[in-house]
Amino acid sequence: MNPDRMRALLEAVRAGDLSPDEALERFAQLPFVASEHARVDTHRALRQGMPEIVFGLGKTPQQIASIVRTLREAGQTALVTRVESAAASDVQEREPGGDYDAAARVLWYGPNEVAITGAGTIAVVCAGTADLPVAREAEAVARRLGNKVELIVDVGVAGLHRLLAVSQALRSARVLIAIAGMEGALPSVVGGLVARPVIAVPTSVGYGASYGGLSALLGMLSSCASNVSVVNIDNGFGAAVVASLINRS
Amino acid sequence: MNPDRMRALLEAVRAGDLSPDEALERFAQLPFVASEHARVDTHRALRQGMPEIVFGLGKTPQQIASIVRTLREAGQTALVTRVESAAASDVQEREPGGDYDAAARVLWYGPNEVAITGAGTIAVVCAGTADLPVAREAEAVARRLGNKVELIVDVGVAGLHRLLAVSQALRSARVLIAIAGMEGALPSVVGGLVARPVIAVPTSVGYGASYGGLSALLGMLSSCASNVSVVNIDNGFGAAVVASLINRS
Amino acid sequence: MNPDRMRALLEAVRAGDLSPDEALERFAQLPFVASEHARVDTHRALRQGMPEIVFGLGKTPQQIASIVRTLREAGQTALVTRVESAAASDVQEREPGGDYDAAARVLWYGPNEVAITGAGTIAVVCAGTADLPVAREAEAVARRLGNKVELIVDVGVAGLHRLLAVSQALRSARVLIAIAGMEGALPSVVGGLVARPVIAVPTSVGYGASYGGLSALLGMLSSCASNVSVVNIDNGFGAAVVASLINRS
Amino acid sequence: MNPDRMRALLEAVRAGDLSPDEALERFAQLPFVASEHARVDTHRALRQGMPEIVFGLGKTPQQIASIVRTLREAGQTALVTRVESAAASDVQEREPGGDYDAAARVLWYGPNEVAITGAGTIAVVCAGTADLPVAREAEAVARRLGNKVELIVDVGVAGLHRLLAVSQALRSARVLIAIAGMEGALPSVVGGLVARPVIAVPTSVGYGASYGGLSALLGMLSSCASNVSVVNIDNGFGAAVVASLINRS
Amino acid sequence: MNPDRMRALLEAVRAGDLSPDEALERFAQLPFVASEHARVDTHRALRQGMPEIVFGLGKTPQQIASIVRTLREAGQTALVTRVESAAASDVQEREPGGDYDAAARVLWYGPNEVAITGAGTIAVVCAGTADLPVAREAEAVARRLGNKVELIVDVGVAGLHRLLAVSQALRSARVLIAIAGMEGALPSVVGGLVARPVIAVPTSVGYGASYGGLSALLGMLSSCASNVSVVNIDNGFGAAVVASLINRS
Amino acid sequence: MNPDRMRALLEAVRAGDLSPDEALERFAQLPFVASEHARVDTHRALRQGMPEIVFGLGKTPQQIASIVRTLREAGQTALVTRVESAAASDVQEREPGGDYDAAARVLWYGPNEVAITGAGTIAVVCAGTADLPVAREAEAVARRLGNKVELIVDVGVAGLHRLLAVSQALRSARVLIAIAGMEGALPSVVGGLVARPVIAVPTSVGYGASYGGLSALLGMLSSCASNVSVVNIDNGFGAAVVASLINRS
Amino acid sequence: MNPDRMRALLEAVRAGDLSPDEALERFAQLPFVASEHARVDTHRALRQGMPEIVFGLGKTPQQIASIVRTLREAGQTALVTRVESAAASDVQEREPGGDYDAAARVLWYGPNEVAITGAGTIAVVCAGTADLPVAREAEAVARRLGNKVELIVDVGVAGLHRLLAVSQALRSARVLIAIAGMEGALPSVVGGLVARPVIAVPTSVGYGASYGGLSALLGMLSSCASNVSVVNIDNGFGAAVVASLINRS
Amino acid sequence: MNPDRMRALLEAVRAGDLSPDEALERFAQLPFVASEHARVDTHRALRQGMPEIVFGLGKTPQQIASIVRTLREAGQTALVTRVESAAASDVQEREPGGDYDAAARVLWYGPNEVAITGAGTIAVVCAGTADLPVAREAEAVARRLGNKVELIVDVGVAGLHRLLAVSQALRSARVLIAIAGMEGALPSVVGGLVARPVIAVPTSVGYGASYGGLSALLGMLSSCASNVSVVNIDNGFGAAVVASLINRS
Repeated sequence: MNPDRMRALLEAVRAGDLSPDEALERFAQLPFVASEHARVDTHRALRQGMPEIVFGLGKTPQQIASIVRTLREAGQTALVTRVESAAASDVQEREPGGDYDAAARVLWYGPNEVAITGAGTIAVVCAGTADLPVAREAEAVARRLGNKVELIVDVGVAGLHRLLAVSQALRSARVLIAIAGMEGALPSVVGGLVARPVIAVPTSVGYGASYGGLSALLGMLSSCASNVSVVNIDNGFGAAVVASLINRS
Repeated sequence: MNPDRMRALLEAVRAGDLSPDEALERFAQLPFVASEHARVDTHRALRQGMPEIVFGLGKTPQQIASIVRTLREAGQTALVTRVESAAASDVQEREPGGDYDAAARVLWYGPNEVAITGAGTIAVVCAGTADLPVAREAEAVARRLGNKVELIVDVGVAGLHRLLAVSQALRSARVLIAIAGMEGALPSVVGGLVARPVIAVPTSVGYGASYGGLSALLGMLSSCASNVSVVNIDNGFGAAVVASLINRS
Repeated sequence: MNPDRMRALLEAVRAGDLSPDEALERFAQLPFVASEHARVDTHRALRQGMPEIVFGLGKTPQQIASIVRTLREAGQTALVTRVESAAASDVQEREPGGDYDAAARVLWYGPNEVAITGAGTIAVVCAGTADLPVAREAEAVARRLGNKVELIVDVGVAGLHRLLAVSQALRSARVLIAIAGMEGALPSVVGGLVARPVIAVPTSVGYGASYGGLSALLGMLSSCASNVSVVNIDNGFGAAVVASLINRS
Repeated sequence: MNPDRMRALLEAVRAGDLSPDEALERFAQLPFVASEHARVDTHRALRQGMPEIVFGLGKTPQQIASIVRTLREAGQTALVTRVESAAASDVQEREPGGDYDAAARVLWYGPNEVAITGAGTIAVVCAGTADLPVAREAEAVARRLGNKVELIVDVGVAGLHRLLAVSQALRSARVLIAIAGMEGALPSVVGGLVARPVIAVPTSVGYGASYGGLSALLGMLSSCASNVSVVNIDNGFGAAVVASLINRS
Repeated sequence: MNPDRMRALLEAVRAGDLSPDEALERFAQLPFVASEHARVDTHRALRQGMPEIVFGLGKTPQQIASIVRTLREAGQTALVTRVESAAASDVQEREPGGDYDAAARVLWYGPNEVAITGAGTIAVVCAGTADLPVAREAEAVARRLGNKVELIVDVGVAGLHRLLAVSQALRSARVLIAIAGMEGALPSVVGGLVARPVIAVPTSVGYGASYGGLSALLGMLSSCASNVSVVNIDNGFGAAVVASLINRS
Repeated sequence: MNPDRMRALLEAVRAGDLSPDEALERFAQLPFVASEHARVDTHRALRQGMPEIVFGLGKTPQQIASIVRTLREAGQTALVTRVESAAASDVQEREPGGDYDAAARVLWYGPNEVAITGAGTIAVVCAGTADLPVAREAEAVARRLGNKVELIVDVGVAGLHRLLAVSQALRSARVLIAIAGMEGALPSVVGGLVARPVIAVPTSVGYGASYGGLSALLGMLSSCASNVSVVNIDNGFGAAVVASLINRS
Repeated sequence: MNPDRMRALLEAVRAGDLSPDEALERFAQLPFVASEHARVDTHRALRQGMPEIVFGLGKTPQQIASIVRTLREAGQTALVTRVESAAASDVQEREPGGDYDAAARVLWYGPNEVAITGAGTIAVVCAGTADLPVAREAEAVARRLGNKVELIVDVGVAGLHRLLAVSQALRSARVLIAIAGMEGALPSVVGGLVARPVIAVPTSVGYGASYGGLSALLGMLSSCASNVSVVNIDNGFGAAVVASLINRS
Repeated sequence: MNPDRMRALLEAVRAGDLSPDEALERFAQLPFVASEHARVDTHRALRQGMPEIVFGLGKTPQQIASIVRTLREAGQTALVTRVESAAASDVQEREPGGDYDAAARVLWYGPNEVAITGAGTIAVVCAGTADLPVAREAEAVARRLGNKVELIVDVGVAGLHRLLAVSQALRSARVLIAIAGMEGALPSVVGGLVARPVIAVPTSVGYGASYGGLSALLGMLSSCASNVSVVNIDNGFGAAVVASLINRS
């Protein structure tokens, strides 16, 4: 998995510094050597080329704080998503520092300004005000991953003139995140206006036959625009990660 | 149910021409008196103000021909929907005359030109060529019910410029039928462009997560445009009936 | 989108008062020029021919009050739907005036009596007392949109004599809104009694296999009456808008 | 399970004619002693008080013929349901005799006229002509089980006058079977007209949002009439068995 | 609808005491003449042959008390189902008297002992203790409708010996109500043991893939026992009504 | 059902100590003779070879305590699952003793250390920390049933190196329980690594398109590894019982 | 993955016979070295301890024959499942030898009699004759994997006496496979009778609300018997593999 | 929409060569001027930066040939997807030339070798041989859009060693398409191995609880790997378009 580390081990075997059996043992243990906190994968930043992101939903403040501490002790940044306001305060008491963005429900431990490393702009487009929390999460995560982000809100498909008014901004993005609940038509319309990949995020906004985002999800998967791919309902975080990887080099 | 007929019976009772018991008997039988073909409701044209429409799906040519004959003997027109080409020929052999429209799968017994009685124009708008059979059915039925119809095709939401190019036509309609499969976003976009009622028809066009029209159906029911109501999947016929009733007076 | 405004701009170009590039710029910006509150579309009343309706669900009292203020400063009326009692009080404190209808969950800023502009009567028919909140919403919205409305309650299909007793009222309406939960059979039965468009509203009333309105929704979409179209579950507001547009001219 | 047979065995034990171990053995074997055709339960007529009914769907003509033969050799009648025309001929070739009712898809081996043993009349009511095969199955099975049956067809809820015209017949039945596809509203309306148990049978008639009978099934289960119970989609046979058991004594 | 009343009117027409138009008017109004409380149908006891049952779910104590009062003023009994303890106390304060059965969630206004009018016994059989509330509701309603009821609990199919131990009781019932959640297999097993109609009631007991009673509902509809019909999830009340109607005469 | 008890009865009949009718009576009553608490099946430990397990969900502390007391008076152990902390305290007040494991939500009345009777080791493997409660339940139940258990956590399929690091532990188990939410891929991957039966437990961990465990459930049922079978969502208890039965002899 | 092979490579490195880079290369390639048919995993028999099983569904006879040939050239047996009669003949023409079992749809290349290596008996129990193909598949696969198998058919839960008559056979099995369609209640009933693991197989037998096996699947997952685990619909093959692994030592 | 064309029109207005009203007219018509084949959008190649792709499913050979001809007369290439062998021959007779790839069901009119314009490699990874048609479609479309593609097959998650053997190839791709049916776990596992965007394609491969790709679809949307986005079931074409847009610059 790590050719250099493996080659080093094999060189040690050749040199007689390590017996084959010892080498065998080391191979299996390799990713966890010298880690006191086994669950925290301090090497991911290297492997994935992005900071460790902690999915906060379903974790206690205690668990989150412990993971953050491990990461910081390893000299890394930490980005916690889906963390409500009260939980964030609790984490920050246990592990001081950290910058909480309530609108995005994101807690950040790292430099105030992250250097822009993404090649172009990520446009985060959303249909209604009720979709804003998801859009904010996508925006915050994408920024912390080193991208220039443009947030465009309230451009639902039943008011086309608003969407057309921002078409220049849409076209100048390297990659777009289109967020919508209800009928979820925004990604199709946006996808037809640009020649770039569009990440569609269905939201649970709506009632009745929206079925908690199912209508938007099925609509986006069935999109007549072929440059659209889809992530889970309300998954602004995942959309930001995918968009960020697209925006590299 | 038929006040005139009832009043006539009551007058006959008053005049002594009919005993109360005989009247009682007649009341219960009323809608079916003197009809050899019990299943054919020759009075609907009067009651509903529109010609009898025969839903052909699941009926044999024999059954269809028999119903048509009954209606014509009663001096009425007959409009048969969802009848495939071979079945239509079979019906026409049994009951000569009739004008078959293969694209709409509609068989018509009546005058070549139906007088326009609708107040305005019905616009039938459809997203893709695969939705055409449903659009044709809607168009044919609406015309035979006495409406001026404008058919606008291939204006999917992923190619907005096509849709915007026909916005004048959309705005000049009294009522619109918007037909789409896949994500079914057309009614929302059309609904945002006009101040008229929009009848949405989801179609079974699509594959995979379209689930035979479910994605379009849920999307249309969840539409962010408030002037949209919905009929069953592929139900061009029903949309035409509703639009025709709206277009009266 | 606004031919007159566009023509004026083009005249200015011809007259040399505006360069082509300036005109180009203005075209894209057009619907938002001079609007301090970008999200509020003060022109919709003109475009759609009906007052702005604010969907209250998921909006804070603060957001609602701000939108209402913008509309009123623009000299318009405002109709807020799906606003619970406590939220309505909060809005009314921030933006005094306003008339709250608790049964309909509707908050109105405008004249006490709206002039009747609809051509005929809208009949709002509902099956059970549990469906009343949806019926009240439909009634309140339809009235505020300038229609004469007749509300007919407690006419479920398992007690046909009640429904037949009001058949005269049903027949004299220009358009009908039929509201029912559980098996949702009311629109089919009503649809068979009248020759007018029927807007069916499934409600979430019921339990078990009603699945929160799904049974009623599927039943209404599958209706054997061809003059029925359907809106979302519990969507009394949408039904009223569609009925109102039908009732115009 | 069979107290008399068990008592006889116990008496034999007391008399010393049978050892306890032999008795034990016999108890376990009891229902199958001396039966060459293990799968045919020739005792059901006694236990259930009705002739053996063979569900033909998914059985080969060979299998059906073999079961029929076993039953007849045991001196019993045999009623085979869901058997298509070609399969019936095949069965009749292998096992001569038998009376095939194509409309009901039912094959009968027994007396031409079954004596009426049911206490009252079973009314089989159905909404549309497409529901007829299910109605015919219910009718044929109920007759062969010894009931007086009245078949009432084409009384859909969108044409109430037809249904009201037969309300006397509905009210005079001991038990009713109400069969409908699409929105499946018939049982609710019929249930409201009578004070008798109504067995509802959803059919797979319909298209689109009918989902092969799901809309009718959910509607019937959610019926606002409390005297309605439901059997499986298209299950005319089961409805007839339940109705027949109700109609006894 | 009421032949005698109609005949009387017709006689009056013949006698000249009533004009045809007046008669026409009266016909439509007939069921509601002189009723101050339109929503309460005080004639149902006569029409349906059973006391009025008020479905309490979703009604306020105020509404329930008002309906109860109307019924009692009309000299009738009243049975309210699905009423929680607090609501029952509230109703009883507004309308004194009444006997509340907390286990069954049923409130009764009527004689302490209802005369047994049913022909045989209704057996209410249930699988687990968690199904008891539904069984109690079925039992209480059936008793108040004048039936002898035998309640048999805790006889799940995974402990057959318990079920077999009560088989004599099962076989001596005129009609059975079988209640089960989870896999809902009880009605099939019970149905195979008796030659009587079995009303199956799926319950929402279970978790995960039980999907709130869906697993039991589908299983019961698919039952391999042909003497089983099904009512809605948790609908002990409906099962009791159906069983009671079966148990008459 | 109990050959020895039956044989004894039959001997008594032969000896004349018991009449056939008395024997008949006893046979039906057999499993409940002399039991004051009918619902508690004190013989299951013998029949099933494992201690009685009480499913706590939906039972009151009173009911649980009563069952526990009955079991203990019969000299048996008792294992209560799905019992929350507060309920456990309540039970323990009513029935002192008992050892509560909060992480597993399991309450145990029996010896501190259960003797290991299982032949090999049961490996309980789980994907994420959110799946831990289910894993803990499986572990606790399996231990109390007399098995050696190895718990392996945080080995999700998106971090293969962690899973590969424990492959030796996986391979040395006699049977494995693989627990995962979201896409539920762990059992497939584990199943491919071992030649032992794998019991898959989908969990309700996840959001949006996970649909409360449906995604994991369907994925596990569709597993491309043929040594996988599945239990209900979150059913750690059931998995432990199955694994324990596999691990015997 | 293969410690011995890895150790050998490491010894070669130590001995200087292999450079570290060559070793690195070999590690990645290891499982496929010298295999002309990359897709065929000739080592699985060793890894999994059972012969290679080829899932025939969706493979052409050509593909199947090619895989079989590869396996046989490697000196292994081959078991092909889900292969229809015509396809089997085609495969056998291309790769002579092989024994086709039409009832089980299984094609076997190997010794006529497979040595019994399983510790006990696998009981394959099935509810109806329509479930037989699935039962036959389970039986054939289990036999070819070296197990003693007892097939018990036609023991549906609506005819308990048949099931009870075979309870001795059920109890003497080491592991049971219970197969049923429709309500899928057999595994619950069987599970209650034995103290062994029960593998439940839902079948697609049934119609209407059976939804192609969904009713049986949900029922089995919700089983009130805790010794039941479930495999995919109609997956007799998977059940046999799981049962066979349980039956080993 | 096309600033240059609009500016030219505005210049003409300024120059007096065009009246404002004429300009207004031209604006609305702009995208279709001078196009005889209205449905074919010959400008998309420019707008989207990729050749026109014709979705063949549901189009007649006649329609396809006509669209191809229009595109070629406009000097463009044409790529037709989802076209079966017979239909492709028919199209090629009507419009000679064209290169049909049967495995991918793709018909290509253009240069034999498309110049590589993509920045890196697109890896198309698929789980089983049954997924190959979808993989081939993705590969063919991606190649024709100017990308270097590496196809990696038969690397299902139940045989991890195969997948690990190709991990180098996975890591060297710029973007990956991961295709799988059944439990659809491949994208999660691949996503964990690379730091690149992964486009997941669920396939309809599987049976029973796979529900035609639903299990894979839900699993992929719920993936625990955050670099995964999803397209429609079997949508190899869409995945290729998205991957190609990512791979640009």
